[in-house]
Amino acid sequence: MNIITISREFGSGGRELGKRLADELGFSYFDTEIVSGIAEKSKLDEGYVDYVLENGVMNQIPITFSHSFSFLPYLSFGAADIFAEQRNIIRELAAGDNCIIVGRNADVFLEKEKPLRIFVYADMQSKIKRCMDRAPEGEKLTAKEMERKIKQVDKARANSHSIIADVAWGDKRGYDICVNTSNTVIKDIIPAVAQFARAWLSSK
Amino acid sequence: MNIITISREFGSGGRELGKRLADELGFSYFDTEIVSGIAEKSKLDEGYVDYVLENGVMNQIPITFSHSFSFLPYLSFGAADIFAEQRNIIRELAAGDNCIIVGRNADVFLEKEKPLRIFVYADMQSKIKRCMDRAPEGEKLTAKEMERKIKQVDKARANSHSIIADVAWGDKRGYDICVNTSNTVIKDIIPAVAQFARAWLSSK
Repeated sequence: MNIITISREFGSGGRELGKRLADELGFSYFDTEIVSGIAEKSKLDEGYVDYVLENGVMNQIPITFSHSFSFLPYLSFGAADIFAEQRNIIRELAAGDNCIIVGRNADVFLEKEKPLRIFVYADMQSKIKRCMDRAPEGEKLTAKEMERKIKQVDKARANSHSIIADVAWGDKRGYDICVNTSNTVIKDIIPAVAQFARAWLSSK
Repeated sequence: MNIITISREFGSGGRELGKRLADELGFSYFDTEIVSGIAEKSKLDEGYVDYVLENGVMNQIPITFSHSFSFLPYLSFGAADIFAEQRNIIRELAAGDNCIIVGRNADVFLEKEKPLRIFVYADMQSKIKRCMDRAPEGEKLTAKEMERKIKQVDKARANSHSIIADVAWGDKRGYDICVNTSNTVIKDIIPAVAQFARAWLSSK
């Protein structure tokens, strides 16, 4: 099975790159499927599962999710179980088909399967611009606020990664190839990344 | 003109990657040509020029080169001039032909020409193995000594880079793509890198 994992800085366009790359290569694409799979198995709120996975711990449970675990699921299905379930679901998905998995620490969980591990990054200015261009209707953050948000999200990703990996999130030694998307239209570099991926996967 | 610069950790196989990539793409390949060009213009010893460029400063001049600058050249052509000449020669070379330049801070000197900037790296174990497999006849370093040598060479490269660049040597933000050669036969990943390079250059 050919597997590509994509880790990415918030605002670097990594998710778009993953989606387009999957289209280009004819691979399955998994991202939110992992969260909804865990939510289904655990009967927990999807937003809550996502929060635990993105932040690595459940020590500060946001009030918005509190209604969803007032009973048994909360007691019987803790953060450690969510992580374990994430690993199981990622492995199931990866065993079924050539695929691209974005985020979710799939690079670490699938280490033995020797996926092509891509890290997507960009300079802060490019990330702020990309985020502001694509902000959901009604979100009106200043550039400074956006920078803070980008740093927060990436810090949470780094935390969540550090629980299970030896090499720090974003450290190039943890990836096979790192791609800089500063000042780049994602669509334009898809042929480059796709051709690299095809040749790399076929050489292994 | 299509330009590719290759920066690399010592022992990562970056030079071999550059040479093979140049063959694959039909580009000119420049490496020691830069040193010999400067030596010729300045009438300085090639080994000394190389030492200054690799170490960034000339505060500790190795005794082996001392004979070559006992007179005028040393006084009239200092480290700053060597750096300036390096910049000139790199720009001349890059203006002439599609080319690949390995090391020599070409990524920084050619910033305006928007080259494809590649960084080649590997884990320490792979680098030690590669260096020991290819050690010149008579060099008998232990793995520990080799690790020290690798760190020394890379430290010197980082120093030399820091004189002219804002982003630290090896920091992925200073490159367009970073390629991990751990446990990799360089020849096997040339098609992947070449296809990436062709598509990337044609998208710019």
